[in-house]
Amino acid sequence: MKEYPFSKGLEDVPAAESVLTYIDGQEGKLYYLGIPIEEWAENSTYEEVALSLLLRRLPTKGELKVFDAALRSSRDLPEEVIDFIYDLPPQTHPMSALRSVVSLLESYDEDARRDDLDAKFRIALRLIAKFPTIVAYFDRVRKNLDIVRPNPSLSHAENFLYMLTGKIPTKYESKVMDVALILHADHEMNASTFASMVVASTLSDMYSAIVAGIGALKGPLHGGANEAVLKMFDEIGSVDNVEKYIEESLAQKKKIMGFGHRVYKAYDPRARILKKFAEELSKESKYYEIAVKVEEYMMKKVAQKGIFPNVDFYSGIVYNALGISTDLFTPIFAISRVAGWAAHVLEYLEDNRIFRPSSIYKGELDKKYIPIDQR
Amino acid sequence: MKEYPFSKGLEDVPAAESVLTYIDGQEGKLYYLGIPIEEWAENSTYEEVALSLLLRRLPTKGELKVFDAALRSSRDLPEEVIDFIYDLPPQTHPMSALRSVVSLLESYDEDARRDDLDAKFRIALRLIAKFPTIVAYFDRVRKNLDIVRPNPSLSHAENFLYMLTGKIPTKYESKVMDVALILHADHEMNASTFASMVVASTLSDMYSAIVAGIGALKGPLHGGANEAVLKMFDEIGSVDNVEKYIEESLAQKKKIMGFGHRVYKAYDPRARILKKFAEELSKESKYYEIAVKVEEYMMKKVAQKGIFPNVDFYSGIVYNALGISTDLFTPIFAISRVAGWAAHVLEYLEDNRIFRPSSIYKGELDKKYIPIDQR
Repeated sequence: MKEYPFSKGLEDVPAAESVLTYIDGQEGKLYYLGIPIEEWAENSTYEEVALSLLLRRLPTKGELKVFDAALRSSRDLPEEVIDFIYDLPPQTHPMSALRSVVSLLESYDEDARRDDLDAKFRIALRLIAKFPTIVAYFDRVRKNLDIVRPNPSLSHAENFLYMLTGKIPTKYESKVMDVALILHADHEMNASTFASMVVASTLSDMYSAIVAGIGALKGPLHGGANEAVLKMFDEIGSVDNVEKYIEESLAQKKKIMGFGHRVYKAYDPRARILKKFAEELSKESKYYEIAVKVEEYMMKKVAQKGIFPNVDFYSGIVYNALGISTDLFTPIFAISRVAGWAAHVLEYLEDNRIFRPSSIYKGELDKKYIPIDQR
Repeated sequence: MKEYPFSKGLEDVPAAESVLTYIDGQEGKLYYLGIPIEEWAENSTYEEVALSLLLRRLPTKGELKVFDAALRSSRDLPEEVIDFIYDLPPQTHPMSALRSVVSLLESYDEDARRDDLDAKFRIALRLIAKFPTIVAYFDRVRKNLDIVRPNPSLSHAENFLYMLTGKIPTKYESKVMDVALILHADHEMNASTFASMVVASTLSDMYSAIVAGIGALKGPLHGGANEAVLKMFDEIGSVDNVEKYIEESLAQKKKIMGFGHRVYKAYDPRARILKKFAEELSKESKYYEIAVKVEEYMMKKVAQKGIFPNVDFYSGIVYNALGISTDLFTPIFAISRVAGWAAHVLEYLEDNRIFRPSSIYKGELDKKYIPIDQR
């Protein structure tokens, strides 16, 4: 048996090979399929990014047309599943609702009982289509509002905002949401993608894999960070209080939310794109001014240590300016990232090996079972 | 950044430190908390094994008494969740039903919104108590039978068989089920345990972690193996056909189900214990004779290569002899293993680090986005 070194949290330990995403953490660059994230944000749509990740190449015009049509046709949920959403206790966390609904959807999908990769591709497509519907339906039901059925004449991002608010969004709002979805679609081997892959590697079904991704993303160390950023801005309260807050936090070794990343040691390119939107939307946001001041002050203090704003620092401001409830930020992350989870699962299953790492035993051995009366 | 070697499926790569379980694959030995599995099977109960794993030591008599009382009091499900089980399409896979029900249970548990390890310990206790109920209720509902409410005067194993069949089991049947649960309670860093830990490492909730474990165990490369063993016995059909079947399978490089293990290169100690029960129950089983013959023949052919029967080779025969439906074998595995999942999660969270391995990029870089009309 070969001996491998131990790295806690598997930091820097390669877990798979992939052509999907590359992060140059030193330079602050992110690529999907070798193409810089800025080009995707500028030219593409979430629909195209999702299909590109699933196919592991840019689609043809015809492929994208068919995929987009299939997405638009697959958005709604079985009526039994909508009833289930109405029955959920309204205090359910939206990520828990998403996890439970996706788990339940398997019961209504014949493809879940098929083993081939084509069936898994079809499930991926349907889940990408349905995630916004699940999140929007649950949000409206818990707020005692009527659900808004998907509108197939709207794009993925447009339709999501429409189902959430009941109003057709402006072109600008749709563009902002579309770009936010593009930026979050994949991010190499993060914890939720890895969780999906571990589950899929036992040859379990696609629903089980995606459900694991949702569960991992729900954690505050992963998907919950942009919520925590807004909470921090609320604590700071005003621009005048920024310096004092940061100095006190750093003195107490408290983490400044939205700064630093295990991979990026430079400015997160996604944060740069979202910062522009946050600036444009700044009239809608009480947070933007505080954010800029926090960034300025932090850059003076910690940029030389490789600590920069990450994507979560500006995404929350953008979603807040669009009028979205804070506890939907992580579900929006999931709406986007489901494409990455599915794409990594499909890629890994082409040459699968079950994930079964080892463990370092730290206990004693050959102890005796002591009968309970003698303890 | 340190460079770590790549091992597909993370084989032999240490992912965590633990005092829970040690496998000596060369010698064919398994220890929980340093105590050989044979001693647990001989002297302990599933309840005590579960509590020992959660506490990471043998409990006192008083602790076990309280834990057992808490388990017995926590078995039933909220009525809304029972309604949900009635509403599930009956063709739902029992593992999918378990996954969906556990996911839904979070909505009814205030502790899921608490971050401390004590809250997670309480959830672990309740899930250990409720898993048999979920599996038994779903099985009876899909068969159009009335559900059998848990009986708090029965032990964990007894009560499970009672809820499944509606009859109080014999002492012997209960002992067999209890030992089967003891043997499956933990097994170091397997794929489902690892999936639970990856999810928990984002500081997500205990339900999300356990749901990931269920999803991983559902896969035929992991929990589904004992089902596959019985299917193979059915294909073999009779003792006379064993030699021919094995020779043909080996010639076609087909896997003989229930043989070999990534860690054990000797006889799986759990298989040895279950084999004894299978032998005692052999009058109830059409499979035992075929199994013995398969083992004999395989030992001649492949034992020198370190390929021996594993736990799945005999567990299916035992469950079948107890009259349990084949598609409940993996859920029974989950009923036992939930203790291991929870114990590893609790242990890891004492000194948590998010699982975020790296990925080896195999694609090109700095490609151009080609406008769709030019593709």
